[in-house]
Amino acid sequence: MTTHADRRGMFWDMVAGRVPPPPAAALLGWELVAVDPEAGTIEVAFRAGEQFANPVGVVQGGFLAAMLDDTLGPALVATLPEDQFAPTLDLHVQFLRPARPGRLVGRGRVVRRGRDVCFLAGELLGPDGDVVATATATVVVRTMGRH
Amino acid sequence: MTTHADRRGMFWDMVAGRVPPPPAAALLGWELVAVDPEAGTIEVAFRAGEQFANPVGVVQGGFLAAMLDDTLGPALVATLPEDQFAPTLDLHVQFLRPARPGRLVGRGRVVRRGRDVCFLAGELLGPDGDVVATATATVVVRTMGRH
Repeated sequence: MTTHADRRGMFWDMVAGRVPPPPAAALLGWELVAVDPEAGTIEVAFRAGEQFANPVGVVQGGFLAAMLDDTLGPALVATLPEDQFAPTLDLHVQFLRPARPGRLVGRGRVVRRGRDVCFLAGELLGPDGDVVATATATVVVRTMGRH
Repeated sequence: MTTHADRRGMFWDMVAGRVPPPPAAALLGWELVAVDPEAGTIEVAFRAGEQFANPVGVVQGGFLAAMLDDTLGPALVATLPEDQFAPTLDLHVQFLRPARPGRLVGRGRVVRRGRDVCFLAGELLGPDGDVVATATATVVVRTMGRH
């Protein structure tokens, strides 16, 4: 049986602390809450610092987009073997509500896993559980050394 | 005659140094290159630091999205009176090429200015002038104290 602790690859090595988180994830305060690679779902959390604020004191939408990119991508990356990665081709975000700086929760899922193209979706929730933004993304699976 | 130096409002106060840039703009290393409020066009530049990198050393797509949000929005905001602002409702980004950390140039434009809804578009260029990402956004103009 393969347990999560046995898994290798960018995502699992980071989650297990074998490699440091990438700078972008560290900047966003990324942390894993729960992951189910068989279901293609993930829940993560972010710390939206005051440094992400726009002139009216709410998180600039682009940083919510960055958090959603770091929610949807990992839902897929957690399912990949260690020699594969999945650059985002296309990201579409709808900003439903203003988000104050603080803890935000991201929920991501693999909507369709094609041979190399995958469709992802998810949402970002504020402290009171309201959805502040939703996103869809299209990504392509690449094998290292073959691109 | 109204010169740029006479203009007031969030955008012009920041550009003239009367107010500090919002934290999100400062974090992205935002700077104004050129703006033409009559034409609804803008050119800005960003410093994509190493802290925006993903595991393969290129800028995480979400931060390119943040830069595009801070390119398209200001193209419109530069045209608004000082009691108005324009939250982004919807942002769609296509990632054409990987972008290395460094200086990136954003070009934004107002595609259609409706009564309160506006359609914006733009692109982000790498050091060699290649387009690394393109975006469209839908925003709504709000008047302070009336929402």
